[in-house]
Amino acid sequence: MQTLQEMTAKIVAFRDARDWKQFHNPKDLALSLVLEAAEVLEHFQWKNASELDNYLKSHKDAIAAELVDTLYWVLLMSHDLDIDLGAAFQKKMRENDEKYPEDQAKGKHDKYTAYKNL
Amino acid sequence: MQTLQEMTAKIVAFRDARDWKQFHNPKDLALSLVLEAAEVLEHFQWKNASELDNYLKSHKDAIAAELVDTLYWVLLMSHDLDIDLGAAFQKKMRENDEKYPEDQAKGKHDKYTAYKNL
Amino acid sequence: MQTLQEMTAKIVAFRDARDWKQFHNPKDLALSLVLEAAEVLEHFQWKNASELDNYLKSHKDAIAAELVDTLYWVLLMSHDLDIDLGAAFQKKMRENDEKYPEDQAKGKHDKYTAYKNL
Amino acid sequence: MQTLQEMTAKIVAFRDARDWKQFHNPKDLALSLVLEAAEVLEHFQWKNASELDNYLKSHKDAIAAELVDTLYWVLLMSHDLDIDLGAAFQKKMRENDEKYPEDQAKGKHDKYTAYKNL
Repeated sequence: MQTLQEMTAKIVAFRDARDWKQFHNPKDLALSLVLEAAEVLEHFQWKNASELDNYLKSHKDAIAAELVDTLYWVLLMSHDLDIDLGAAFQKKMRENDEKYPEDQAKGKHDKYTAYKNL
Repeated sequence: MQTLQEMTAKIVAFRDARDWKQFHNPKDLALSLVLEAAEVLEHFQWKNASELDNYLKSHKDAIAAELVDTLYWVLLMSHDLDIDLGAAFQKKMRENDEKYPEDQAKGKHDKYTAYKNL
Repeated sequence: MQTLQEMTAKIVAFRDARDWKQFHNPKDLALSLVLEAAEVLEHFQWKNASELDNYLKSHKDAIAAELVDTLYWVLLMSHDLDIDLGAAFQKKMRENDEKYPEDQAKGKHDKYTAYKNL
Repeated sequence: MQTLQEMTAKIVAFRDARDWKQFHNPKDLALSLVLEAAEVLEHFQWKNASELDNYLKSHKDAIAAELVDTLYWVLLMSHDLDIDLGAAFQKKMRENDEKYPEDQAKGKHDKYTAYKNL
């Protein structure tokens, strides 16, 4: 039952205890974010539907680790850029609700397609 | 003060109210994750150090929105693959503590370099 | 019937005629490469097999343009880093031939899987 | 002095001799393209300007190999999607010439910024 704040605090404490902030800059954090997301994607390659289904079940821990790595950089970058990620999330969800009213969007692929890139 | 569980519940409720799960599959969620991370990265391009510094201050909301989009897919993919992201995060942080003991890693660039890809 | 050298020469001439080298640095070229590759990938999202098949036929020009953009940065980065891309390509193909002998690799998925990441 | 056609022919011959086309589909080729571009990008991380400068000189072969891998998927995807990459390249360069006339674009950062994403 962890909050974004608690997780971010852990990451920053880990970094500060090692005096590693000196090696960080926002641009390289952004590179890390993309590189970790790419490591998630790599798991999905070269498998047909049933192979992928089995793979996802047997490699849950490995994929979880890559998702955590991606989350790690989202949280650390938000911290270093002084972004309130929780507030930004709530704002986005309100905007999504307004842009895709339930009664108009329900089961509609075209609405979904517009939405797909958020 | 949001937990991962609360945020994930909101995202899933949003999707289910629109009956959009039918359009989702894990592989395309992974593509979304990479594409949104790339949109974060795009903000960091073609600027020298001082231009980037100013840009990051004046575009905080835009970058926050892209970070939220990335987080969105991390949470939704974790949900759909039945991954306990909070538990995976805690496991990772314990592993990081073991791999990079404070007294050995403090201020060390080589330790950091080993760490950098988590 | 264009050679890599001819294409690279055109790109560099285009840049130099505009005095744009001053805005280039290798790191941002690498960012461009990833961002353009991501634009190729975006075409493949949220479509089932038959939808994708139709889409690829009807969007050939758009995908071609994104592939050219990716190639553009491969060529320009090679030029700026003084890399002989043609020689590196021939070296790689020789290595591939040695690593995956025809008689051992033919139709073998496991050999292919090892190969898949080159 | 290799042409795109010659390089593509080599890649396709390599694949066909091993009967590996059966494992290929355009979507996974697009994933490969992004993953290889990400491997190029990884070389540019966590280094300051002078460290990067030295690194790029001492790791030229490794970066060349990643650029070749990226090129490999550009060529193979173009082949499989029946795209004439050379023609698409010439079209793009003509469009670039029209969009950024030399006399208006010379040394202009704003023109360049518009151009940057091609």
